[in-house]
Amino acid sequence: MRILITGGGGFIGQKLARALDKQGQLRGKAITEIVLADLHAPTLEGASLPVSGMALDIRDAAAVSAAFAEAYDVVFHLAAVVSGQAEADFDLGLQVNLFGTLNLFQAIRHAGNAPVVVYASSVAAHGGEEPEVIVDGVELNPQTSYGAQKVMGELLLNDMSRRGWMDGRGLRLPTVSIRPGKANAAASSFMSSIFRDTMQGEVSNCPSSKDYPIFHTAPRTVVANFIHAAEIDGAAFGPNRNINLPGRTDTVAEMIAAMTLVAGPEPAGRITWNADPVIQKIIAGWRGHLKADKALRLGFQQDQSFADSVRWFLEDDIVKDR
Amino acid sequence: MRILITGGGGFIGQKLARALDKQGQLRGKAITEIVLADLHAPTLEGASLPVSGMALDIRDAAAVSAAFAEAYDVVFHLAAVVSGQAEADFDLGLQVNLFGTLNLFQAIRHAGNAPVVVYASSVAAHGGEEPEVIVDGVELNPQTSYGAQKVMGELLLNDMSRRGWMDGRGLRLPTVSIRPGKANAAASSFMSSIFRDTMQGEVSNCPSSKDYPIFHTAPRTVVANFIHAAEIDGAAFGPNRNINLPGRTDTVAEMIAAMTLVAGPEPAGRITWNADPVIQKIIAGWRGHLKADKALRLGFQQDQSFADSVRWFLEDDIVKDR
Ligand SMILES: NC(=O)c1ccc[n+]([C@@H]2O[C@H](COP(=O)([O-])OP(=O)(O)OC[C@H]3O[C@@H](n4cnc5c(N)ncnc54)[C@H](O)[C@@H]3O)[C@@H](O)[C@H]2O)c1
Ligand SMILES: NC(=O)c1ccc[n+]([C@@H]2O[C@H](COP(=O)([O-])OP(=O)(O)OC[C@H]3O[C@@H](n4cnc5c(N)ncnc54)[C@H](O)[C@@H]3O)[C@@H](O)[C@H]2O)c1
Repeated sequence: MRILITGGGGFIGQKLARALDKQGQLRGKAITEIVLADLHAPTLEGASLPVSGMALDIRDAAAVSAAFAEAYDVVFHLAAVVSGQAEADFDLGLQVNLFGTLNLFQAIRHAGNAPVVVYASSVAAHGGEEPEVIVDGVELNPQTSYGAQKVMGELLLNDMSRRGWMDGRGLRLPTVSIRPGKANAAASSFMSSIFRDTMQGEVSNCPSSKDYPIFHTAPRTVVANFIHAAEIDGAAFGPNRNINLPGRTDTVAEMIAAMTLVAGPEPAGRITWNADPVIQKIIAGWRGHLKADKALRLGFQQDQSFADSVRWFLEDDIVKDR
Repeated sequence: MRILITGGGGFIGQKLARALDKQGQLRGKAITEIVLADLHAPTLEGASLPVSGMALDIRDAAAVSAAFAEAYDVVFHLAAVVSGQAEADFDLGLQVNLFGTLNLFQAIRHAGNAPVVVYASSVAAHGGEEPEVIVDGVELNPQTSYGAQKVMGELLLNDMSRRGWMDGRGLRLPTVSIRPGKANAAASSFMSSIFRDTMQGEVSNCPSSKDYPIFHTAPRTVVANFIHAAEIDGAAFGPNRNINLPGRTDTVAEMIAAMTLVAGPEPAGRITWNADPVIQKIIAGWRGHLKADKALRLGFQQDQSFADSVRWFLEDDIVKDR
């Protein structure tokens, strides 16, 4: 069982690699190697299994093709330019999110072994002329270039799966919170930083209103769902390989209350409230309410409370004694 | 008013050019030039307005960009590799239908005048995990590479319109019947040839069953709808610039009966009935029933009977005294 994770140096890529390294097997087979590909070759501190880092720009079709000299059994495709950046630079988003994805999928196709491919799409696929509460089967109408590019990747994944060139599974991820580390260029960055930074004694700005509803999921849940997506039978998805992942909806105020419950009142006092029209415009196009019935039927996990997410953040990302 | 029609040498491109030439104006302005771009420079017999032919392969980004040295007010994007061919040659379909469309849209973006762009998508966007009767707002789940590529073009059109780089309108065309001329590589080719060829004394094979429901529209209707799409206010589309076009549903048997009504019993006797599993597999993924409420609200035309389509074919394509 050889596994490739693109974007393996990123937030979710690292956590996924750690979880796979810990469980040691996937799809009933012992994992022999995990390859983490990213712009700079990533490492995985304290890994038990053979984990190798590969410097790979997915925009480079020849390099991506060469990376498949030895076939993979499972590919997790996480490399991407995130929402804020893809909105600021349309061509960069297109190069990485569309062409990079196509380069990867063509390399997989030509490798010829039809591996399992788990693709990170996003609930940013939704917006615009869609109902206020998203259910399965509504027409996708993304209102960001990032969302549009993610859906184009979904279409490629579904078409190549239909053709038998890969066994694809596309997951539309809710906003993953609490994200550790530094703020990034995602418009959703504040949905982590107002918790992460304030719990670590820093001031953090909230650019949205308090009653903005956030559809979110915890890193632990999303990693479990990535692994679940690789484990189940591809045929269970039917002719549509792309699904909405479960998550939960809380307003900014409700999430702050959950943080206060777990971490006391000080962090909330460190949040500033300067509205940011650019971010508000992007997130206004997203949807805060989503029912992921198909995913639940397929056995994907759903978050039970944001207080759990706060606890897991403190355990996994602050204490760091894994 | 300068107009560009890509695929201007094709079936619909030629009929659209003729209709525009005849009406002389568009969006309240006199048409000063119609440019027909195609693989080989097309002509338009007996045109009244200045019509120029341009040899342009939309796969060639530099050539497409050069074609926009002088800006267009309205662009009709019809150039495409059709369903059967895109299914037989995935890479060709991708090059023309996805990259060609992207080349064109980037050239339009960089021209900087945000022209009206009318894009020929297809009801092949629908299929798979969709209801038996398609209504507006259902998640697109194309079951051909052609359909997937057309939807990717829709996403680009919508995103670039949202950004203000073009004023796009995407139309999902029903099968256009009766198509004159020779059979083409579209899987839907028989949906014209069993009428066209038999009315002209030839034998023609029907690869589907008699009760296969076809969602179709006449060339006259589709040309009127292309022009209507260019005339109306882009804002009327709302945040989703891509719509299902109206058409009508008849089974193969009902369409044959309509032909018999108009043209007598002989043509139907010239149809042979050899089932073709390849074609049946492709068309089984399509939908025969579709309600296009949004398009009707926007004033698009709906076909009233297939007998009309038979009459118009005899008038427009056989008699040829336009
Ligand atoms: N975190 C979220 O809230 C969230 C929500 C929805 C979807 N997603 C998606 O999940 C995936 C992982 O997200 P994340 O939060 O870990 O993001 P991240 O930014 O931490 O990781 C993405 C990684 O991709 C890499 N990358 C960017 N361009 C690349 C290129 N050209 N070639 C190779 N690698 C490149 C980056 O270096 C980065 O390490 C992404 O596809 C993202 O769009 C994330
Ligand atoms: N006719 C139908 O039933 C139907 C149904 C749904 C959608 N459509 C769409 O409507 C449009 C017009 O259809 P049509 O029936 O007139 O098709 P057609 O095949 O008659 O015309 C398409 C034209 O595109 C040209 N073309 C192909 N590759 C090209 C390239 N690389 N560069 C430049 N030109 C290229 C072809 O030479 C051809 O003249 C197409 O986009 C088609 O997919 C048609």
